[in-house]
Amino acid sequence: MASFKHQRAHDIDLPRWLYAVRTLKEEVHVALFPELQPSARVLLGPGPSNVHPRVMKAMLSPVVGHLDPDFVRVMEEIKKLLRIVFQTTNEITFPVSGTGSAGMETAMANLIEDSDEVVVAVNGAFGERIADAAGRLGAKVHRVEAEWGRIVEAERLEAALKTARQPKLLAVVHAETSTGVHQPVEELGALAHRYGALLVMDAVTSLGCVPVEVDHWQIDACYSCTQKGIGAPPGLAPITFSERAMKVVRSRKQESRSWYFDLAMIERYWGPDRLYHHTAPISMNYAIYEALRIVVEEGLEARFRRHRANAAALQAGLQAMGLGLAAQPNYRLPQLTVVQVPGGIDEANVRAELLRLFNLEIGAGLGVFKGKVWRIGLMGESSKRENVMLMLSALETVLAAQGIEIERGAALVSADHSYSCVQ
Amino acid sequence: MASFKHQRAHDIDLPRWLYAVRTLKEEVHVALFPELQPSARVLLGPGPSNVHPRVMKAMLSPVVGHLDPDFVRVMEEIKKLLRIVFQTTNEITFPVSGTGSAGMETAMANLIEDSDEVVVAVNGAFGERIADAAGRLGAKVHRVEAEWGRIVEAERLEAALKTARQPKLLAVVHAETSTGVHQPVEELGALAHRYGALLVMDAVTSLGCVPVEVDHWQIDACYSCTQKGIGAPPGLAPITFSERAMKVVRSRKQESRSWYFDLAMIERYWGPDRLYHHTAPISMNYAIYEALRIVVEEGLEARFRRHRANAAALQAGLQAMGLGLAAQPNYRLPQLTVVQVPGGIDEANVRAELLRLFNLEIGAGLGVFKGKVWRIGLMGESSKRENVMLMLSALETVLAAQGIEIERGAALVSADHSYSCVQ
Repeated sequence: MASFKHQRAHDIDLPRWLYAVRTLKEEVHVALFPELQPSARVLLGPGPSNVHPRVMKAMLSPVVGHLDPDFVRVMEEIKKLLRIVFQTTNEITFPVSGTGSAGMETAMANLIEDSDEVVVAVNGAFGERIADAAGRLGAKVHRVEAEWGRIVEAERLEAALKTARQPKLLAVVHAETSTGVHQPVEELGALAHRYGALLVMDAVTSLGCVPVEVDHWQIDACYSCTQKGIGAPPGLAPITFSERAMKVVRSRKQESRSWYFDLAMIERYWGPDRLYHHTAPISMNYAIYEALRIVVEEGLEARFRRHRANAAALQAGLQAMGLGLAAQPNYRLPQLTVVQVPGGIDEANVRAELLRLFNLEIGAGLGVFKGKVWRIGLMGESSKRENVMLMLSALETVLAAQGIEIERGAALVSADHSYSCVQ
Repeated sequence: MASFKHQRAHDIDLPRWLYAVRTLKEEVHVALFPELQPSARVLLGPGPSNVHPRVMKAMLSPVVGHLDPDFVRVMEEIKKLLRIVFQTTNEITFPVSGTGSAGMETAMANLIEDSDEVVVAVNGAFGERIADAAGRLGAKVHRVEAEWGRIVEAERLEAALKTARQPKLLAVVHAETSTGVHQPVEELGALAHRYGALLVMDAVTSLGCVPVEVDHWQIDACYSCTQKGIGAPPGLAPITFSERAMKVVRSRKQESRSWYFDLAMIERYWGPDRLYHHTAPISMNYAIYEALRIVVEEGLEARFRRHRANAAALQAGLQAMGLGLAAQPNYRLPQLTVVQVPGGIDEANVRAELLRLFNLEIGAGLGVFKGKVWRIGLMGESSKRENVMLMLSALETVLAAQGIEIERGAALVSADHSYSCVQ
């Protein structure tokens, strides 16, 4: 075994002046890596959202083994809690060990085989993402496009299902995070099933913010994340698969292209077999457990009402400020408001100022909306009246400083009025 | 939008007696999900290992956005720290957002295209796993097998490289977690390159425990985990790719089968472009940052010495107790010792007793070693003299209670002697 060459490893990536000093004091090297001190932000972007102190505390619970009886008990509770939140009785309901997009990949890699035909609604960055992932896995993708900011009409999805040869699945994004559009999905399960297809739904930005009724809407595969409506840090992707979807998974001709996301194996770890597949992220599972407990304590209905009330006030305030919203009326998400950047404004500078002056994060536009919109999230723990007030006043201050004419105070008056109507 | 049906969701998976009570007090429902209280264990299995309190504390740092300037700074520091630990100057060096096996999948999904031929050393469960993952991605896999517990000889790998048509890569497991074998790999980079192949190395159980000299050994793709030698909770997979490997990635004819693990996209997030790909697990990145700081503070050489000293004492003690080791002599890992279960013993009962009486976790056998071995880890934070003592005395107590004849005290005497030789 070659012995470790101390000198060489320490030379990597360190400034030249350090070479001389290092021989004197090894601590100098260490001093290059300072203590972690990220700022405390108000997170009003598209996620991550702020995390409740109870969730942070739960993450500090002792790390145990991934097959420890204590951890197995937590796994079982997480499954039950997720079933409540997904509104399903699906046996296969648990968090995948990756962030939200890992949930998407789990759905696609387990349902798609080479040359399957799939229909994907594409009206934003996350519909694009599904189409991309499906294509890589060998599917022939029928894209049903709509302008960014608009929903995809069910009739157009049906036309594509008719065109496709034995369509394997229909995939839609429930809450399009790039545009703020709330896609109607209630009837799509029945529609997909009429054509022998499964319904796959991206609930990354919807779960915990607006109703996601997996069983009632006949959704076959649904995936989400932890850092938006659920209120934990990012790191897991809750998924749920219907029995109909699992039949497809279990009768695959080819194995899944993905070893890491292969449900046939993962379900044996999350199910009664407890067969080791990979080492689950223990601390993140503690976090989602506590976050889901908080969701259930609040109650889904109350939680959805809170998201609606805060969004109504925010959107009223923004419009009173003279700003336009990107999503079509009647289909705007409460948890994520996509705002048009007024002409002549440097949008990146506005975000930087919000961060510098108020420690306030909002999101930039993606894809065709890049440079054209801001994305303001009021999700989970971040959906609070005080955050609405901060957002509106801070934006007013920064826009006024940039020379935009704004009737000062109008935003807050409208927001206050909106809250008084709710009560 | 269909309104949420309170009644139905709450009915799921709850005992029948609750139906009546719930209408009286919603808190009863919540009480079903108790506060998280996992036991504090001594983790001497194959990982996760115990986590330093400093790492736990770092996880509590405020969650910020995945593009926040404060997080970007942490990302840059993590890359530098990982280069020190991987002993490399590779630009592409960062943690993938999944557990160790996600690192494997990243290597395979980015390097393999349909019909590529690959050579995989298979002498345990994790070599099997690589062969499985490669096959799913369309590779023709040349398996070079060795008996579990033995290394794979370089000559046999060379013979397979000769047989394969334009071999794309040679993959080996550095520390075979199922057998405790320490595979010699120093010469395999040069060997692979002579045949135009890349060397891929699984360092899941080696990084931070024994030398992993990526540049010196000419390794092209190397992956690990956080919960073993690095000393953080599970949740990320550090990877490093050589320029030679990245040329292969960048000149692919097909896109990677995986959207989530596509390096071409992920490197634009971890590199200077800062282009959003997925939301990185913020808190887990805080954890790995602090854990790597601790690794660098200790110094790699001191860390490897510590692992060797504790392993020598443990292995001396186990042998003094009359137990056999599964890995061939001279190729035993210091961080993971695989012990043969004595005849007539219920191995699961021994593990359960260690957990019950001492809060001590060790691992069971996998695959062909199932029921035949125990796997005792002394990794990262868990590699401590007090843990060696606890392990030996606890095992002696439990085995003696099961009627195995053991010379009481012999294990501790041998361990003490081993330490005194080191000093």
